[in-house]
Amino acid sequence: MIGLGLIGGSVLRAAGRGGWTVWGATTSTTDAAAAEQGHTVEPDVGSALRRAAAEDALVLLAVPFPAVEDVLTSVARHAPGCRLTDVVGVKQPVAAAVRRHVPGTRYVGSHPMAGTSTSGWAAGSVDLFDGAPWVVSVDSGVDRAVWAEVAGLALDCGAHVVPVTAAEHDAAAARVSHLPHLLAAVLASVGADGGPLALALGAGSFTDGTRVAASRPELVRAMCEGNHAALVDALDEALRRLGAARSTLMSAGTVDSTVRAGHLARRAFDASRGGSDRGSLQVDLEAPDAMERLRELGRLGARVSALHGTRCQVVL
Amino acid sequence: MIGLGLIGGSVLRAAGRGGWTVWGATTSTTDAAAAEQGHTVEPDVGSALRRAAAEDALVLLAVPFPAVEDVLTSVARHAPGCRLTDVVGVKQPVAAAVRRHVPGTRYVGSHPMAGTSTSGWAAGSVDLFDGAPWVVSVDSGVDRAVWAEVAGLALDCGAHVVPVTAAEHDAAAARVSHLPHLLAAVLASVGADGGPLALALGAGSFTDGTRVAASRPELVRAMCEGNHAALVDALDEALRRLGAARSTLMSAGTVDSTVRAGHLARRAFDASRGGSDRGSLQVDLEAPDAMERLRELGRLGARVSALHGTRCQVVL
Repeated sequence: MIGLGLIGGSVLRAAGRGGWTVWGATTSTTDAAAAEQGHTVEPDVGSALRRAAAEDALVLLAVPFPAVEDVLTSVARHAPGCRLTDVVGVKQPVAAAVRRHVPGTRYVGSHPMAGTSTSGWAAGSVDLFDGAPWVVSVDSGVDRAVWAEVAGLALDCGAHVVPVTAAEHDAAAARVSHLPHLLAAVLASVGADGGPLALALGAGSFTDGTRVAASRPELVRAMCEGNHAALVDALDEALRRLGAARSTLMSAGTVDSTVRAGHLARRAFDASRGGSDRGSLQVDLEAPDAMERLRELGRLGARVSALHGTRCQVVL
Repeated sequence: MIGLGLIGGSVLRAAGRGGWTVWGATTSTTDAAAAEQGHTVEPDVGSALRRAAAEDALVLLAVPFPAVEDVLTSVARHAPGCRLTDVVGVKQPVAAAVRRHVPGTRYVGSHPMAGTSTSGWAAGSVDLFDGAPWVVSVDSGVDRAVWAEVAGLALDCGAHVVPVTAAEHDAAAARVSHLPHLLAAVLASVGADGGPLALALGAGSFTDGTRVAASRPELVRAMCEGNHAALVDALDEALRRLGAARSTLMSAGTVDSTVRAGHLARRAFDASRGGSDRGSLQVDLEAPDAMERLRELGRLGARVSALHGTRCQVVL
């Protein structure tokens, strides 16, 4: 585990709970000192990577996107042939950096969709991923054994696995993760521009709508800016929809279609989370078309709920 | 209490807990049947209003904005000289309707800033207003005795009172209550447009950012459309800020200023909610400039935390 902040620190705890032998390293002395209470922390990133090479361990990068290239340089030096994954919030740029810096690693990108608006080791918890979706990339060329290992880690951390390609992940994350952060920032600013009176009247809708604006700005920037092409598309769609709301409000005094569409969308989201009754099936990772099937199922919103040997239990 | 949905039903419960003698009426047979288990429900709105006239009671309107004119027609018939308040989410249009339909009532508008995304009597609770801001209008011409009675009701329901004018309320509510509903609707739609995969990846930021899109569309429309002039202004500010984010993202690959401004705004909101140490003071409602002073204090984000006779305890 390289990086012991909110996500890395939570994976370290959850993987330990799940029976994995785990050790970490971080350049943050604060996080290192805190993690050492009860967990194995190597003195520096190089030591952790050398131990990984010696013990043939899976290496997981849990650093913000802007720090990825720097850490990959260390991987190239100390563990150039390792099995590698990451938990960074954008997938195509990380995959490209891996190809550039450590082409000899067997890399499978991943991304747990969980977090809080606080950060650092102290903000993490052993149950952060319980019930959360955790993307494990199914791009063509993925090593199936490493895929199964990363998926197993996610499942052992309490998450369920969503099999998608890096490009699909980035497009979806722009919509459901990066755009929400921009909207929260803008809403908070519009509220504060109303002065102390407006803030004094802020209740549930404002509190919830601005919650993630409390996140550390560097981390929000890192994920938004690392995914800027997909984010511009999502932002354009939001601008178009808001413009339509303004237009009907001005011309006809109504926001009917905006509100109704949003309500149906939220109900679809609630239904998708409630677990569904569309059924379940198995995909054997040894089948020639296993990755294609997982890609297709992921597009339908399916999740891998368990892994028995090479057999994935998939719930639709 | 005319209307026994989420808000009216919660006021009925909370005011009863606070020692008030309360009775209600509603045109919803579902809400009436549920409320009758333990509360006094008159057979119809006319009966409730006639009893209010006979017993010199404060009348509270708790119906959605589109139903206000209709109920005011009943007030004009059955209790034309009553003391009147309301809990509708827009204040200037309600005040205008009161002037048109029941000019003989002594009216003081109010608005508790609390709610949930569910509705109806069953969704209400006795503690919905505990710790919540509750606007009581301090427009010029307000009857101080009625103001004190409405403020006392809000305090007895567990809320604190924010003294603002109807126009200031509507401008602030557009920013912190109506705009959040439009942004939530748009975010939900952009997420759902990403298909089942995007919804499967929705986590905390999407869940919180779309929560109020689960509200009944008619109620969201009623409050947004009832306040459309102020809402267009707030929407334009949001569009301008989102456009600026898009522009810096395209030209320089950054959302720095958007994210940083939003973070500072959210911190200001958190600080304003945490109670402040700017001190407290008293305003005597019998002082000639009492309403002017409350207006000024409201603009600074002050709240009335208690009422002892005619003396308001004001916390800054």
